[in-house]
Amino acid sequence: MKIIPLDQIRQRLEGLDLLAAIEAAFVAYSEGRSIVPPVGELLLPAGEVHIKYGCITGDEHYVIKIASGFYGNPALGLPSSNGLMLLFRQATGEPVALLQDEGFLTDTRTAVAGAVAAKHLAPKEVRRIGIVGTGIQARLQLEQLRPITTCRQVLAWGRGEAQLADYRRQGEALGFAVETTQDTSEVLSACQLVVTTTPATEPLLFAEHLQPGTHITAVGSDTPHKQELDWQILQRADLVVADSRAQCLERGEIHRALSVGAILEEKMVELGEVIRGASSGRTSEEQITVADLTGVAVQDIAIASAVYGAAGSDDLP
Amino acid sequence: MKIIPLDQIRQRLEGLDLLAAIEAAFVAYSEGRSIVPPVGELLLPAGEVHIKYGCITGDEHYVIKIASGFYGNPALGLPSSNGLMLLFRQATGEPVALLQDEGFLTDTRTAVAGAVAAKHLAPKEVRRIGIVGTGIQARLQLEQLRPITTCRQVLAWGRGEAQLADYRRQGEALGFAVETTQDTSEVLSACQLVVTTTPATEPLLFAEHLQPGTHITAVGSDTPHKQELDWQILQRADLVVADSRAQCLERGEIHRALSVGAILEEKMVELGEVIRGASSGRTSEEQITVADLTGVAVQDIAIASAVYGAAGSDDLP
Repeated sequence: MKIIPLDQIRQRLEGLDLLAAIEAAFVAYSEGRSIVPPVGELLLPAGEVHIKYGCITGDEHYVIKIASGFYGNPALGLPSSNGLMLLFRQATGEPVALLQDEGFLTDTRTAVAGAVAAKHLAPKEVRRIGIVGTGIQARLQLEQLRPITTCRQVLAWGRGEAQLADYRRQGEALGFAVETTQDTSEVLSACQLVVTTTPATEPLLFAEHLQPGTHITAVGSDTPHKQELDWQILQRADLVVADSRAQCLERGEIHRALSVGAILEEKMVELGEVIRGASSGRTSEEQITVADLTGVAVQDIAIASAVYGAAGSDDLP
Repeated sequence: MKIIPLDQIRQRLEGLDLLAAIEAAFVAYSEGRSIVPPVGELLLPAGEVHIKYGCITGDEHYVIKIASGFYGNPALGLPSSNGLMLLFRQATGEPVALLQDEGFLTDTRTAVAGAVAAKHLAPKEVRRIGIVGTGIQARLQLEQLRPITTCRQVLAWGRGEAQLADYRRQGEALGFAVETTQDTSEVLSACQLVVTTTPATEPLLFAEHLQPGTHITAVGSDTPHKQELDWQILQRADLVVADSRAQCLERGEIHRALSVGAILEEKMVELGEVIRGASSGRTSEEQITVADLTGVAVQDIAIASAVYGAAGSDDLP
């Protein structure tokens, strides 16, 4: 069993076309070419653990991903996320590799999915990118959006001045001009591509501020109880895209909107269907589109397989 | 993260009181002092993978166990079972240890649970032990029964002469006198303690051969479709004991008997309740008792914690 630590994983990621890998994974999922059992969940007093697992049918490996969020960790000087990924042979069950990614691959595949959603759903002209949240995911989303759009103007929302100042520096290091606000209505008023990245359990964005020609990617809500978008946003949207129809019935923004009857299940299309052209995505610049990303095991499978398959300096003789 | 390979795990097991550890785990489970989410299951064309996970409330660690059965492996020169266990800190989610047990700890904790069931449910006088099956689990059950009973007479059932001859040698090496048969009715006629260890999906043992004063531990059936005991055996039994009430509603012998209406849910008591005396176990030598062991995550938690806590020669400076 090959053990690949985080520094090796970071090296291996360079030069990988993760956008193409994650797109292919969503297409395989929507075409039924994957086995993805329901998410395993361990809810502890201090945090939550998600187990996402499965395989692309006929691939060499299956993948089991463990990712945790312990929100008291920063007070202990530890990152809130952690995790690892395991690859096993589909033909025999033999363990093949342990990727000690400490949650980094989960963060990365989530950010890449944001880029995939923006590529297929954002309007052509994005004058300003809105980022809601100032954490790791807020930074990674910007990083992954860089090759997708020529826009370099960002408006970031956060609760604290210090975090916003930090985030401005991070965005500038990535080549963006970053303004900040503590009022989410400004984000919806000024931005055509909005990404929400918080663990909020009450809506942060409201339909009354929504402009025509906006795309929102909601990344934060991955459980039945988290919510970043007022359900009226999904009601007003021309197109609501789920990363996984099955998962979005149980968790995320779509789940919340369905549970109050704000939208019908039929309104939801799957990201993989949009990517492969089986569902039309955005059909005009004026449309409002929402992508709800709860995180699907096929993303973990794709990134783990890509990292394992990449040459690492630890492979040298 | 400490990585403990199989040879170190075997060393660490020596001297551990696994019977007491597994008894304590069943009691904690029945007292509601554990968090055990539903079993995760990945069903592949070539095999099946079970993910069992959770924690004893307030313990230092939570455990995620992955175990697989690929029944075509022996034809490839590989063991059918494989697996590993992971320990993480309950307070922070940090990975603590990887136990590369290759399925051995799952096999062992299953056999120890058989010994626990026999200790609490078998009649006082066992003149002959019946073992149904000739694989690894059949051997481990005998090994774990050794300290529980003074009986050294075994009648083993298997489908093939060669496997039975092998099994006889294994049992003799453990100090048992082993006779063999290819007729399961002889096992029920001659044995007071019977352990079934096969992956059968059709009953192998039938109520018509059942004698008063028999205890059966059914170990093989751990999915909704496997079955070793005719449901009339559970109907006739004076006592039906589940390792986990919740799991036995969904999988194993009790599930099969419930699904045809042969027994009522109220007939089932939990092993942990019998161990701690909250349910009476066997109350006379003439009773017929059945224990249905589907395998509960608390067993994995107990054995993983015990192995991690034991001193290993790899700990020496």
